[in-house]
Amino acid sequence: MIVYSVSVKVKSGHEDDFRLASKFNRQETRKEMGNLRFDILQSATDPKHFMLYEVYRSEDAVTAHKATMHYKKWRETVAPWMEEDRKGEEFIPRHPVEVEEW
Amino acid sequence: MIVYSVSVKVKSGHEDDFRLASKFNRQETRKEMGNLRFDILQSATDPKHFMLYEVYRSEDAVTAHKATMHYKKWRETVAPWMEEDRKGEEFIPRHPVEVEEW
Repeated sequence: MIVYSVSVKVKSGHEDDFRLASKFNRQETRKEMGNLRFDILQSATDPKHFMLYEVYRSEDAVTAHKATMHYKKWRETVAPWMEEDRKGEEFIPRHPVEVEEW
Repeated sequence: MIVYSVSVKVKSGHEDDFRLASKFNRQETRKEMGNLRFDILQSATDPKHFMLYEVYRSEDAVTAHKATMHYKKWRETVAPWMEEDRKGEEFIPRHPVEVEEW
């Protein structure tokens, strides 16, 4: 399993735009066989700051996700709203490790 | 609901110590009524870097968690292994929002 945490800072006034575009991307991504979670979080102290928390079964699942129309559409749609470059980090889950627990 | 993402950098040689102490803390925290998730993640590129991803039902649940023996014990145990101060961020989940989905 692989976890991606993506930190996003949007331009002021585009908080809801980003949330809604990401909601659609999440909805479609959750239908992928290789996706286990997709959480959209907004900072409690800075509404312009979001985190996406995405869990995939494998590297292949990530590759498949990046080839989908909904991912490509999301990336294009949100690009003009970014205040700074997205920061993605890749993690290996240590606990839990059973697929059923995700 | 409230999500905490805690970024941790440990001193070289203490990766497994940190993982095991956190595993015990996770195990006990998951028994709390107010805890919904507790994921322990290790960076894919820097083994000294961990993220804890914790989800609670409410602020009260967070307060209750911080009063537990296992949390206090964890904090004391891992303190000497920290390479730098922990960075905690508080988030509000936007999607999903139903408790059943956590």
